[in-house]
Amino acid sequence: MSERQTTDRDALFELLDGELVGHLAAVVDGVPIVVPMGYARDGEHVLVHGSTGGGFALRAASERQVVAFAVTALDGLVFARSLFDSSMNYRSVVAYGVLEPVEGERADAALLALSERLMPGRADEVRATTCKEIAATRVLRLRLDDVVMKARAAGASEEPDDGEDHSVWAGVVPLGRRWGAPEPSVLTPAGTPIPDSVVALTTSTEPDDKLH
Amino acid sequence: MSERQTTDRDALFELLDGELVGHLAAVVDGVPIVVPMGYARDGEHVLVHGSTGGGFALRAASERQVVAFAVTALDGLVFARSLFDSSMNYRSVVAYGVLEPVEGERADAALLALSERLMPGRADEVRATTCKEIAATRVLRLRLDDVVMKARAAGASEEPDDGEDHSVWAGVVPLGRRWGAPEPSVLTPAGTPIPDSVVALTTSTEPDDKLH
Repeated sequence: MSERQTTDRDALFELLDGELVGHLAAVVDGVPIVVPMGYARDGEHVLVHGSTGGGFALRAASERQVVAFAVTALDGLVFARSLFDSSMNYRSVVAYGVLEPVEGERADAALLALSERLMPGRADEVRATTCKEIAATRVLRLRLDDVVMKARAAGASEEPDDGEDHSVWAGVVPLGRRWGAPEPSVLTPAGTPIPDSVVALTTSTEPDDKLH
Repeated sequence: MSERQTTDRDALFELLDGELVGHLAAVVDGVPIVVPMGYARDGEHVLVHGSTGGGFALRAASERQVVAFAVTALDGLVFARSLFDSSMNYRSVVAYGVLEPVEGERADAALLALSERLMPGRADEVRATTCKEIAATRVLRLRLDDVVMKARAAGASEEPDDGEDHSVWAGVVPLGRRWGAPEPSVLTPAGTPIPDSVVALTTSTEPDDKLH
């Protein structure tokens, strides 16, 4: 089977550390609610920004409801010689558990961890976070205990004797991320150098180093 | 407010037509379950491939449970002059409703629609789908009646008198998709030309035409 469930912890962390947005799902009045959220892995936890999801995530945390947090990387399209066998290469994880609020000094550290993950190095370039901002920060965390990871990472399925025409090209087209040219804000003076954090981001080869 | 809810139907269709994977959420035994799925918009419906999500989506359909289907495009990272104001530009939609099975001849058309959306032109290059394959195809559809779309598409938030150092660069780094070099399958004879569908995909500028 090319599609499989995996329990590889390194593969889990690589997936979580390589993506930027996940989807948080909770049950509200019997109906599933889903919200996309920026996140960062911090050791054995995933940190999410409560403010983005509004009351929904905070409520789920205070009611100690089980939520699901899903992260998916689409790694390529698989061109088989039939539509039926055509597929996608991907890695996905869904983590289940109860969200915990991260408060006080730990909220400051969590905000920093989120920033370091999403915009590495940026924290050194900007002013310090104020006490008022820390107080207004709503970070939640989910422990990576109950996780389901799946992946397909294989070529096109094909059989030598399946009667299909092998003169038709089959294979995989890998997919990655591309950063565009940075667009300065209105109040950034002309000639202000692009900061190291942005240069590092836009010239990063990961996860594109998997592309040939 | 730079972050807002929108009811623009064209923006909804543009988002759905520009992405490849969504997240389907349903409630199973009181717990939210999320599964990533390839999808295609077909007029006022979203088509999803039941086989990918296994029994979960089919069960939700047969029990006429309300599900949520979320599609998110991350369009860029927003570098403000504080971590607190740093953000992401994105577009997201969540559609709520009851999944309907697409059966018989309509399953054939739905499989073709999924293929044309995910791999435009590929259907003309491969053998026809067999009756057995059509019978094994599980396509579900969700009508786009109850949708919530949100978007942030703006520069870094900044105030002329907020006391922050404007000599620090602030702005947006746009994000797009990058296709890698196609990797032929084991049974594709050396020298087999890359088909038009793959050439079109890997040289497509959409949604990268938003990147400068």
